[in-house]
Amino acid sequence: MQAEKEMKLKGLLDFIIELDKLKQITRQTYLADGTRLENDAEHSWHMAVMAFLLKDFYPGPLDMEHVLKMILLHDVVEIDAGDTYCYDRDGAKDKEERERKAAARIFGMLPAPDAEEMHAIWEEFELMQTPEAKYAAVLDRLQPLLLNCRAAGRSWQEHGIKSSQCLERNRPIRENAPDLWTYVEKTIKECVAKGYLQE
Amino acid sequence: MQAEKEMKLKGLLDFIIELDKLKQITRQTYLADGTRLENDAEHSWHMAVMAFLLKDFYPGPLDMEHVLKMILLHDVVEIDAGDTYCYDRDGAKDKEERERKAAARIFGMLPAPDAEEMHAIWEEFELMQTPEAKYAAVLDRLQPLLLNCRAAGRSWQEHGIKSSQCLERNRPIRENAPDLWTYVEKTIKECVAKGYLQE
Repeated sequence: MQAEKEMKLKGLLDFIIELDKLKQITRQTYLADGTRLENDAEHSWHMAVMAFLLKDFYPGPLDMEHVLKMILLHDVVEIDAGDTYCYDRDGAKDKEERERKAAARIFGMLPAPDAEEMHAIWEEFELMQTPEAKYAAVLDRLQPLLLNCRAAGRSWQEHGIKSSQCLERNRPIRENAPDLWTYVEKTIKECVAKGYLQE
Repeated sequence: MQAEKEMKLKGLLDFIIELDKLKQITRQTYLADGTRLENDAEHSWHMAVMAFLLKDFYPGPLDMEHVLKMILLHDVVEIDAGDTYCYDRDGAKDKEERERKAAARIFGMLPAPDAEEMHAIWEEFELMQTPEAKYAAVLDRLQPLLLNCRAAGRSWQEHGIKSSQCLERNRPIRENAPDLWTYVEKTIKECVAKGYLQE
């Protein structure tokens, strides 16, 4: 192997090993059976599988390879910035700053041109403007909703979440995937009826 | 939403929820910091990220979307069949039969044509004949090797693994990705020198 290629491989593997830490970043969502909280690596894997299975529920063409890369990387900034619970107003205040700093350090570990490319994919996800980023945002909301319903709303109850908050949180689904929104609205109503979510 | 589309969505979501169980299938590999064993969902996520970062180390063209789908699904049969440790000779005897049965049940949950397509992708992975399946096999070996080295060989030591077994296990890397094999051979030697792996 040429020295240059060897250096590149070393840089990539250092980044890959660093990413192992994502398996220890705990989210506020319980697994479907309610036994423990999910972590970011598991969440990213689950979302990625959903991405290719549910693609016909996004109204428009998608570059699926790009969607998958975006989903697989979307939470790696949380290695430094931690998971900010989606209903945490205080945490939301400096979330952007914390995550930007994390992105600079973490993607900065990669050799060129991967550093720029992967950083750009993460920024694209954050901006939620392209079809791929909008679809990723849809799945980033649908995946925990599915788990929360199966886990009898345990996470919602621990945090006293109301159905109005949940509807607002899932707004990207309403705006970007009408068929999934039909399902989500119905599901949220059912969760309220079962007492999983406050009225 | 049309009734037919609604039925399809229900089938897809039932499968997606079933897959949540993969987060509870424990492997024999420790996380890089050695604190706990990894699970199949985390392993699949980690491999998928490696797939697009290391693509230049596979000598030939690859359909990356196909590689990613294959990796994301390659272990779902373990929901029923359990994780068979790669050095477990007894477990290997009926592994194929257990996994074929699991594949039929799990992929069979999907609506057509996804059931056939996803089942076929898993079979392609198992046969290790196409470039995408060969590359997935390379990563399925490289990912735990990276973790085992960082975790000071804890898993190898618990099972009394020898370097000859490790070299044999990683043969798909030697046969399919020469540059990665250069790295792997060197790394295995270093692990022996450090006492992580038996001579």
